[in-house]
Amino acid sequence: MNGQQDKKPYVIGLDLGGTNAVFGIVDQRGNILATTTIKTQDYGSAKAFVSASINALQPIIRQAGGIGQIHAMGIGAPNGNYYRGTIETAPNIKWAHETVVPLAQMFSEQLDNIPVAVTNDANAAAIGEMVYGVARNMKNFIVITLGTGVGSGIVINGQVVYGSDGFAGELGHVIIVRDETGRPCGCGRKGCLEAYCSATGVARTARELLAKTDRPSLLRELKPEDITSLDVSIAASKGDELAKEVYDFTGRLLGEGCADFATFCSPEAFIFFGGLVKAGDLIMNPIKQAYDNHVFPIYKGKAKFLVSGLDGAAAAILGASAIGWEI
Amino acid sequence: MNGQQDKKPYVIGLDLGGTNAVFGIVDQRGNILATTTIKTQDYGSAKAFVSASINALQPIIRQAGGIGQIHAMGIGAPNGNYYRGTIETAPNIKWAHETVVPLAQMFSEQLDNIPVAVTNDANAAAIGEMVYGVARNMKNFIVITLGTGVGSGIVINGQVVYGSDGFAGELGHVIIVRDETGRPCGCGRKGCLEAYCSATGVARTARELLAKTDRPSLLRELKPEDITSLDVSIAASKGDELAKEVYDFTGRLLGEGCADFATFCSPEAFIFFGGLVKAGDLIMNPIKQAYDNHVFPIYKGKAKFLVSGLDGAAAAILGASAIGWEI
Repeated sequence: MNGQQDKKPYVIGLDLGGTNAVFGIVDQRGNILATTTIKTQDYGSAKAFVSASINALQPIIRQAGGIGQIHAMGIGAPNGNYYRGTIETAPNIKWAHETVVPLAQMFSEQLDNIPVAVTNDANAAAIGEMVYGVARNMKNFIVITLGTGVGSGIVINGQVVYGSDGFAGELGHVIIVRDETGRPCGCGRKGCLEAYCSATGVARTARELLAKTDRPSLLRELKPEDITSLDVSIAASKGDELAKEVYDFTGRLLGEGCADFATFCSPEAFIFFGGLVKAGDLIMNPIKQAYDNHVFPIYKGKAKFLVSGLDGAAAAILGASAIGWEI
Repeated sequence: MNGQQDKKPYVIGLDLGGTNAVFGIVDQRGNILATTTIKTQDYGSAKAFVSASINALQPIIRQAGGIGQIHAMGIGAPNGNYYRGTIETAPNIKWAHETVVPLAQMFSEQLDNIPVAVTNDANAAAIGEMVYGVARNMKNFIVITLGTGVGSGIVINGQVVYGSDGFAGELGHVIIVRDETGRPCGCGRKGCLEAYCSATGVARTARELLAKTDRPSLLRELKPEDITSLDVSIAASKGDELAKEVYDFTGRLLGEGCADFATFCSPEAFIFFGGLVKAGDLIMNPIKQAYDNHVFPIYKGKAKFLVSGLDGAAAAILGASAIGWEI
C-alpha cells in the first residue's frame, strides 16, 4: 500500500449506485471516519453530479484534516473501466447512459489532482476483501456477488483481472443452462448464471416451483408475481421446504459454475457477497456439495468457500475505498 | 528476458512426452541450435532418466560452447507443476506414475545449478507464443491445445496463470454438455470439452454421425472403430460433407466454450495449437461463428482467433525452452 509510504492516512471511497452515491473517508484498517450521500439521478449531467459531489465531500474532507490527508479516491460503479477511469454506457444512470464519462479525471481535477481509480462494484468487492476482508494474504481468489445481478471479481497473483479491455470478470454471464430451456437473461442471451442466481432469478425459481407442484409452502400466501428473494429467505428460515429447495437449486448451479471456474485459475477461495448469502448454510451447503460432486479431480478439496468479511452496509464503501489504496 | 542481461545466449528446452524426451538448445530468437532425443520410458527411475538425459545433453551443450553459455532450462511435461518444479502422478510416465518427481532440482544439480523450471505442455505452448510466436506483445491471451487431450495455457497481465496450486488452466475440463447426454471423459466426469474436441473426441463425433445417418461419406470406406481424427481431416480436405460437419460441430463447441472463457479474462486473442488446427478454416470458421453468436455483448468483436505461430515439429521444444527465458 502506497498509503503507508506517503503517510497520507485516508482514502475517499465512492459507491455509485443507481439511486444513491455514497461517499466515505476510510483509513487503512477499514475504519470509516465519515460518510455523506447524494442522489445519483438528481443531476442532468456528469459535470453537475461531480460538482454536487465535491460540495458534499467538503465537510467530510475537512473532518479528515483536509485534502492533504487523502491518499487517493476509489470509485465502484456500474460499467466502471479501470484502464480508462471511465464509466461506460451504464444503463441505470441517466447521465452515463449511452455515453462514456471520464469520472476519474473529473474528480481528480476537483480534488487537488489526487489519483482517482474506477472499477465495477464486483471488482471493488474483490479488492475490499483483499485489503480489509477474508482474502487478506490471498493471491488467488474469486468474489461472486449475488445481488440484483450476479457479478464477479477475480484476483490472480494478487492482481484484479481486468483483461484486455478492462471488462473482464463477468462470471454471471457464463452459460450454465446451454439447451433451449435456458432462461432469458437481461443481457439478451439465454441460460446465464445470472438468470438463475440473481435476486430476480431466485424469485423466479420459487414461482416456477410453486406453479409446478401442489406442495404446501408459506410462499403460497403471497401473490406469485409479488414474491421476492427476501420472501424466499424468510420462508426458508422458518423451515419452509419448498423455499429450501429454491436454495438447493440455486446453490447447485452456483457450485457447478464454480467447478468450471476452478479450471481457469484454481483459486484458493470462492468468496460470496450480497443478499443471498445471508441465508448462510441454506445456500452455502448446496454450493459446496455441488462443487465437490462436479469439480475436476485435481482441484478437489482445495478451495475454501467463504462468506464476505465486509460488513453489509459498509461493504460497498469499503470496496470502493480499497481501490484507492491500490493506486 | 533475463537472458539479455546476463549475456548467456542459450536455454535448454525439454519436451517430455510419454514416448520421447526431446531436448533442444535454443537461442533468444527461437533458433534451435541442436537437438537430441532419448526414450522416456527406457528407465526404471527418475534418477536413471535424468542421468541418461545428462549424457545425451553433453555433446549438444558442448556445441553451444559449454554450460557457461546456458541461461536456464525449461521443461514442458504432463502434470508439470511450476511452483514446485515437479511432475506429479503423471499417468503416462512409469517413473512418475503415482509419485512426485522433483525434476527441476534433479536437472539443476547435474547442470552446474542453472535454474530449471517445469510446467505442463499447454502452459509451455502459451509461453512459447509469447516469446517466439503470435502472442509477442500480448499481455492477455489464451492458448488452447487440441491434441490427444484439450489443454490450455492462460496468460493474464503478461503472466501465465498457475493458480493457488500450480495446476490452473485446465479449460479442456470445463463442462460443455451439462445434461445426462454428456460424453464420458477420461477424467471420470461427463461432458468435458475434451471429450468432444480432442483427437479421440473428433473421431467419436465422426463415428456417431456415420451411425446416425445414411449419408454418403468417404469415411464409410473405413471400419468405424479405425477412424481417427486424421482420417476426418483427410476426408474433409477432399470436400466430404459429413467430415466437414464433424468440424462444424467441434468448432461450435469450442466457440461456445471460448465465449464463456471471455467472461473470465476478456483475452486479446484465443490461439489454437495442435493437430486439429491443420484443418484451417474448416475448424476456425465454426469456432469464430459460434463465438460471435454466443459471446456476452460487451466482448463482441474484440478477441482475435489465431493459429499458433510456432512451427509444428519444433513447437513443443520452443515452448519448453521459452520457460527458460522466463526464469
